[in-house]
Amino acid sequence: MADTTIHHEAEMLRAHPRGSMLDQQALVRCLQACLDCAQTCVSCADACSAETDPKMLVRCIRLNNDCADLCAATARILSRQAEPEPAVIRAAVDACAAACAACGSECERHGKKMEHCRICAEACRACEAACRELGTAKASA
Amino acid sequence: MADTTIHHEAEMLRAHPRGSMLDQQALVRCLQACLDCAQTCVSCADACSAETDPKMLVRCIRLNNDCADLCAATARILSRQAEPEPAVIRAAVDACAAACAACGSECERHGKKMEHCRICAEACRACEAACRELGTAKASA
Amino acid sequence: MADTTIHHEAEMLRAHPRGSMLDQQALVRCLQACLDCAQTCVSCADACSAETDPKMLVRCIRLNNDCADLCAATARILSRQAEPEPAVIRAAVDACAAACAACGSECERHGKKMEHCRICAEACRACEAACRELGTAKASA
Amino acid sequence: MADTTIHHEAEMLRAHPRGSMLDQQALVRCLQACLDCAQTCVSCADACSAETDPKMLVRCIRLNNDCADLCAATARILSRQAEPEPAVIRAAVDACAAACAACGSECERHGKKMEHCRICAEACRACEAACRELGTAKASA
Repeated sequence: MADTTIHHEAEMLRAHPRGSMLDQQALVRCLQACLDCAQTCVSCADACSAETDPKMLVRCIRLNNDCADLCAATARILSRQAEPEPAVIRAAVDACAAACAACGSECERHGKKMEHCRICAEACRACEAACRELGTAKASA
Repeated sequence: MADTTIHHEAEMLRAHPRGSMLDQQALVRCLQACLDCAQTCVSCADACSAETDPKMLVRCIRLNNDCADLCAATARILSRQAEPEPAVIRAAVDACAAACAACGSECERHGKKMEHCRICAEACRACEAACRELGTAKASA
Repeated sequence: MADTTIHHEAEMLRAHPRGSMLDQQALVRCLQACLDCAQTCVSCADACSAETDPKMLVRCIRLNNDCADLCAATARILSRQAEPEPAVIRAAVDACAAACAACGSECERHGKKMEHCRICAEACRACEAACRELGTAKASA
Repeated sequence: MADTTIHHEAEMLRAHPRGSMLDQQALVRCLQACLDCAQTCVSCADACSAETDPKMLVRCIRLNNDCADLCAATARILSRQAEPEPAVIRAAVDACAAACAACGSECERHGKKMEHCRICAEACRACEAACRELGTAKASA
């Protein structure tokens, strides 16, 4: 079961002196999914390297690391609301979704054998969906 | 009120093929506090820059940014459990606590006027405490 | 005048146990440009916040920060050669180019008044060009 | 042989509206060493995972990743000059030196067999020395 913890993302977005051009609910969901997926991918890459047969997991480690980097960058960008540039946000969210799709597919292949890959695939799929949803929400805003 | 969201930090730590040398509860609390504080500080720096009088907030922006960088690095380090080097973990957690202490003090000075600084001070203080607690837990392990 | 310093990017790419699918010269140029632009943008955001009139520079600070995040993530992704996923690399490089384009344009507006914006615009334009070049090099590989 | 490339670190530090409290030459050397070491460590971790026997390199991968995170955070902190907090800078530089020391020692163990570890050990040792030098320069400022 996933953990329920205290975080301040939504509160901080509401406390900003300028409103957002993005759909607030989609934004908070995407921001939280990016933060969770970044952490999960760092952890999964590390767990993969410590498995008994890491040679089977080279692609998983690579995609975990790329996905963690793009999720982390996107979470930082979505945490800002001052003077946003839509083209930059869209490109970041698209890159994040692409990384989550690739990493999610690879982790799913190992999810039956390794619990860390199963959880990571779940976090990647949730983040990919949240990125796609934010893209749609933006288009209709 | 802070948000309650779904995250996978504790689950991922439990799914790792190797156990941790650190106290698991203190580790999860510190990891979650670092993730939350990193996000809050990125958001607070951005909100400060968009305030009506950003010149009063130069030090706050600077410390927000430094604190976000050290919290993010520490969260990544605490997400790993393979072959840990205690001296590196301790130094990262100490640097994170120092940044949270400095940023928390500065944000508290502006917390009555600006809600984002009030929330950020809270996240910094929680992260500083979690870092100190992890340091103590390690020493007694 | 820009600085000439010792770096190991190209050496490390050559020392990798697996070859790259990317054009090596275009890859090294893009990697170096991303590293330089990430650093320059962090520095420019900080310099902007310390100027006598930071209110004129809110958009510059925002774009500096977004650009730094995407350049840093892209530099990390381009530093890896194990089991690359072309769709992820392409999306990262595209997002980086979009951020460099937006930040470069904004910095150019302030480049006559502020030397840090002038240098940063130069780094952004060089990185944008290197990203576009790598995209073309990939397509023809 | 290491590469000679164009970077803007020193130029950007000189273009800042506020002077630095740190010794400028030691600062530039440390900043450049952190940027180089962060990149080298990301690249070395990836190369290690793709080696024929990655099981021998789990500790190297772990320390590469931790070192990359602390070097990157420290490079960002050293890129800022507005309203510095000495305790935060000192703690970051100390944590970076600790990570470089641990990673450098581990990479040296593999340097005869693997060129990427030999280069990475060199970058770690240079960064550790630059961090120690900056610490001394600060104390005498």
